[in-house]
Amino acid sequence: MRARLEVEARDGGARAGTLVTARGRVATPCFMPVGTRGAVRHLASSDLEELGVEVVLANTYHLMLRPGADTVARLGGIHAFADWTGHVLTDSGGYQVFSLEPRVDDEGATFTSTYDGSTHVLTPERAVDVQALIGADIQMVLDVCPPSLAPPPVLRTAVDRTAAWARRARRRFLEHPDAAGRQCQFGIVQGGTDAALRVESAERTVACDFDGYAIGGLSVGEPREVMLPALDAAMALLPADRPRYFMGLGDPVGIVESVGRGVDMFDCVLPTRLARHGTILTDRGRYNLTRAEFADSDEPLDPDFPDDPAGRWSRGYLRHLLLTREPTAARLITLHNVAWLLRFMRRLREAVVAGRFAAFRAEVLATWS
Amino acid sequence: MRARLEVEARDGGARAGTLVTARGRVATPCFMPVGTRGAVRHLASSDLEELGVEVVLANTYHLMLRPGADTVARLGGIHAFADWTGHVLTDSGGYQVFSLEPRVDDEGATFTSTYDGSTHVLTPERAVDVQALIGADIQMVLDVCPPSLAPPPVLRTAVDRTAAWARRARRRFLEHPDAAGRQCQFGIVQGGTDAALRVESAERTVACDFDGYAIGGLSVGEPREVMLPALDAAMALLPADRPRYFMGLGDPVGIVESVGRGVDMFDCVLPTRLARHGTILTDRGRYNLTRAEFADSDEPLDPDFPDDPAGRWSRGYLRHLLLTREPTAARLITLHNVAWLLRFMRRLREAVVAGRFAAFRAEVLATWS
Repeated sequence: MRARLEVEARDGGARAGTLVTARGRVATPCFMPVGTRGAVRHLASSDLEELGVEVVLANTYHLMLRPGADTVARLGGIHAFADWTGHVLTDSGGYQVFSLEPRVDDEGATFTSTYDGSTHVLTPERAVDVQALIGADIQMVLDVCPPSLAPPPVLRTAVDRTAAWARRARRRFLEHPDAAGRQCQFGIVQGGTDAALRVESAERTVACDFDGYAIGGLSVGEPREVMLPALDAAMALLPADRPRYFMGLGDPVGIVESVGRGVDMFDCVLPTRLARHGTILTDRGRYNLTRAEFADSDEPLDPDFPDDPAGRWSRGYLRHLLLTREPTAARLITLHNVAWLLRFMRRLREAVVAGRFAAFRAEVLATWS
Repeated sequence: MRARLEVEARDGGARAGTLVTARGRVATPCFMPVGTRGAVRHLASSDLEELGVEVVLANTYHLMLRPGADTVARLGGIHAFADWTGHVLTDSGGYQVFSLEPRVDDEGATFTSTYDGSTHVLTPERAVDVQALIGADIQMVLDVCPPSLAPPPVLRTAVDRTAAWARRARRRFLEHPDAAGRQCQFGIVQGGTDAALRVESAERTVACDFDGYAIGGLSVGEPREVMLPALDAAMALLPADRPRYFMGLGDPVGIVESVGRGVDMFDCVLPTRLARHGTILTDRGRYNLTRAEFADSDEPLDPDFPDDPAGRWSRGYLRHLLLTREPTAARLITLHNVAWLLRFMRRLREAVVAGRFAAFRAEVLATWS
């Protein structure tokens, strides 16, 4: 089945809608927590259900090495493996592999496992096959992820190779005996911060007719005023009836600015990684719980968030657990940050539906800029 | 209010009853999970509620150093601090302090903080005052904990000092303006594995008229056939209407053998520490989940435990999370092990009530010896 994006409301460039897949429906814009190895750190699928998570990300690179895609398949695929009936999206593994300085040629990327030093090859076809074994609802194509400050010739090669790999990945996916029925596949637009390359990459990706389109290689350290024009350049080319996914972005300002440009889906380690370092997302901005002023505080993490799943414990208690490295702290703050960000997404969606997006954006910029 | 033990059923030396305190009632025999710094590792009070935990242990040594007993008191005491309405028992800190090779004299123990190297003094009186600030339902007296293979003169001094400290601690507790109303206080019987010293220590402790009596300094590495006679020697002296608590014991055989001798309460890091190392408690004994044979297993941790809070995830999945050091594994296995041990205690209690203790004991010995 083809995935699609049903638009329910538009407000300027922003849209509220529903991602429809073989598995079901997901309200958009949506945020997808990252469950690298098949679990969001400190959480289980029961927690995701209680939080109201609709899509969770899993990492192809990590799962293909541990426990191995075959093992996940033998245990019934990622949903049975993690006992999770919501949506799963697997990245292609490209981002991790390219961070390992692999040997890359037109065929694919050869890399060394961070687990045991063994050598592996990832090609566009193999990324499809591995993701078919893992069995997520949404597959991502293998793309070439150049360093954020790569010189023009490197970017050029990356765009060309990404386009060639996208065609090969699409062919492999459509030939796959089961994947096309229950899975769908997203292409990835590259091109760094070069608007012309972004346009070209978007055109060549759309030509493959994917179920959805992702923006890769942005939000990797560049300033926002450089990132947003590159995003604009790509977005103009993407078909309206397909979901649009900004990979690796999760800060409130970045999300609201991207939604204003028509992005529907986000993932990021931000809320969970910040949680482990004691940084709390709240309606008034973020703060670090380790600050001495919170030692005697009996207030909850965010007094403006009555439904906070961690709201029954005080800042003083959670700070103590955090400073003494009790894992309960990371868990409860993770629950808080993910719940806060999901609520942020719901409010953002409501603002779009109600035609209040501009006011919501102004509020977010005032708090978070 | 005095704590007491209401005996509901006896079967041989075993008894099933209810511990009654100012806070409420606890079914005995009971197992108390250890929440060293105010949280059981990987769990929050919400988890303890769902597990049906009735008493949790907290550690005076750790809490007096971090966040400090004053801070716990300012935040409303340990129950408000951890948002937990069940029972809390605080140890005296003696066990930890004595493991730090403190300077000990008749007055108390001078030790160095493992957190920042600062110097602290713990006396019987200060242990009472600190525990009054922490505000647990049950205080333990400061005792002298000699090494498990201490020579007779060291044991002798430990028993004498423990007795003298018990008298001072009892006096301080009874003089305390609030403690005696809402808290109760347990004495601790020492004496190593010397039956005569155990008898003497029990007599001198009972002479102080505590609310309950603990057995300290056993289950510290000695063989069970040495431990049980020492336990027997002490138990014979303890009043029937007071709770009896075996400190630091939590293995199924040790529990059943102690309950057969009249013990009512147990604490141990065993189920939670084993969980973090992947050791699973089940009705058929224990096993380590890291074993290769479980890689493809879609069975739950314990197929004989339908109400297992971790029962919806497979051995294969949890093994994968454990081997990749995902904290979700430690959490879910902790939930399993604690739930399993609490169910073990309920079954043990039911066996005593039904007059089936001998059969239950035989079953446990057959499985676990």
